[in-house]
Amino acid sequence: MTALIALDWGTSSLRGFLMDEDGKVLETRASRHGIQNLPAEGTEGFEQAFVSLCGNWVEEHNIRAGVACGMVGSAQGWREAPYVPCPADTHSLASKAVSIKAPLGVEILIAPGLSYDPENGCPDVMRGEEIQIAGALGEDVSDGAERLIVLPGTHSKWVEVRGGTIEAFHSYMTGELFSALRRATILGRLMPEDRKPAADVAAAAFAKGIELALESGPGDLAHQIFSARTMGLFGRMEHAALADYLSGIVIGHELVSARNRFGGRMRADMKLPVIGDGDLCARYVEGFRIACECEPVLLGNTAPAGLYRFAAALGFLSSASA
Amino acid sequence: MTALIALDWGTSSLRGFLMDEDGKVLETRASRHGIQNLPAEGTEGFEQAFVSLCGNWVEEHNIRAGVACGMVGSAQGWREAPYVPCPADTHSLASKAVSIKAPLGVEILIAPGLSYDPENGCPDVMRGEEIQIAGALGEDVSDGAERLIVLPGTHSKWVEVRGGTIEAFHSYMTGELFSALRRATILGRLMPEDRKPAADVAAAAFAKGIELALESGPGDLAHQIFSARTMGLFGRMEHAALADYLSGIVIGHELVSARNRFGGRMRADMKLPVIGDGDLCARYVEGFRIACECEPVLLGNTAPAGLYRFAAALGFLSSASA
Repeated sequence: MTALIALDWGTSSLRGFLMDEDGKVLETRASRHGIQNLPAEGTEGFEQAFVSLCGNWVEEHNIRAGVACGMVGSAQGWREAPYVPCPADTHSLASKAVSIKAPLGVEILIAPGLSYDPENGCPDVMRGEEIQIAGALGEDVSDGAERLIVLPGTHSKWVEVRGGTIEAFHSYMTGELFSALRRATILGRLMPEDRKPAADVAAAAFAKGIELALESGPGDLAHQIFSARTMGLFGRMEHAALADYLSGIVIGHELVSARNRFGGRMRADMKLPVIGDGDLCARYVEGFRIACECEPVLLGNTAPAGLYRFAAALGFLSSASA
Repeated sequence: MTALIALDWGTSSLRGFLMDEDGKVLETRASRHGIQNLPAEGTEGFEQAFVSLCGNWVEEHNIRAGVACGMVGSAQGWREAPYVPCPADTHSLASKAVSIKAPLGVEILIAPGLSYDPENGCPDVMRGEEIQIAGALGEDVSDGAERLIVLPGTHSKWVEVRGGTIEAFHSYMTGELFSALRRATILGRLMPEDRKPAADVAAAAFAKGIELALESGPGDLAHQIFSARTMGLFGRMEHAALADYLSGIVIGHELVSARNRFGGRMRADMKLPVIGDGDLCARYVEGFRIACECEPVLLGNTAPAGLYRFAAALGFLSSASA
């Protein structure tokens, strides 16, 4: 093998990485062909999106194999890959990968998602994050150390890792909750779409939301969010800052819950890896500063490194298939 | 005065009551002309809706005065009535009523809303519920007893009363939160619009949601609601029952928060008046049965009685203006 195609294929976007056999990213491409925005219906949509993004990579480098992760493996994806139950590592993922005969003679192996089934009988799932975590862990997993990793997002994930194994995880619908409250409730009415507050005003509103969340007892969210209306009605906060305030309340609730759940692993001396979109992660880092004592470490996009480790576990890489 | 028109005029509906001077409801009418569904723009819309509902009452009974409550007094209403700060009683409401010259020579007095400003600086508001509470209290307020009253709804209210005075209240956006989660997030995808579960299945799913909420710590809502997806994905709950399960989680969170806030007033021997829509109140009563020990007492629609007390406080009723 001389080169590998790795695809991070989500709901709203598709990212492709051309890698050499050591995992070095030679070229990155992105398109808007997420699985809900394909150029054609059904299988053809996936095929066209693949050829359009990667066609000339395949021809130039004579590529025969690729790997993919994310919603491309969901029930609405190219082909459904199962959820692998925790505890799981990259070898568990590789053992349940599903194969697609893609155009141009390329075989693509899609990574499965993960499930976690806690004692209360309410299961949890992830799809795509397991690869980002594999990338974050890298090769340095032989110490068997316990780690907590956070992936802020539409559905944030708090992931408990030991060595290279994901042992448990917990989803929070924080991003989607914020969006639904803003778009589909009365709270959005006072929030202007076209006007942003000054940076210091936004930061103060966000911090005020986090601090309100820190005061909360069980079940208080539906009460506290109403203040994102009344603070505007009473002129105690400028309307342009109300969305930052609401964001602080909902992110603050996530942090309060996590602090309760993972207290011992969120001490002042603990480094807490944070993976994801830069702007959103910056909000979480500010939230940690106010709500917690641990030290967040921003990791950026670890999907390419994770896809490479998945490919290695599949035995795709002669150099890595020890 | 021989008869009185009393209007409960909300966002999505208008209800009119023709009363005699003792507050007996002689006739009830309803129309879909809530303030967001008027037959014409601006003031004309309110005027047309009033004449269409009450015109022949005015003529037959030679009525000159009416009272109204609800969103008709909001910034988007016929005329804005202020928020009166707590503590407040029907006399405080009467002193801040605003007057409208309605068609057919009728003067309508619109009740103001209430505000409550707790120590944390996050104010709370109600509009319409203050009249329902006045109706629930009736004349029997001279004992000065402390009461807690619950009004389940789009924005549920928990109201602290002493004698005839509303001292404090707390809103929960529970109804609107449920609706936004169902309509505007991934949770709605597995919930069929056209299929209802069997009554025992719905009740079991609702109870399971309440019980999950009872286990929750601060900030857990955004985590727990995700199970309204995964329980369906994993075949642990039939899809038709997922909406009842989600309803149990969000109502359960409200009850957990209230139990925390009002514990001393939710003991086994305490009667808890519950005011509002029958189906929704029935859910809350079932929630109380699982989560609390107090005894809910369903009061039905207390708005007509409250409007009558408001009219009396205005001095409209010769017999009641002692």
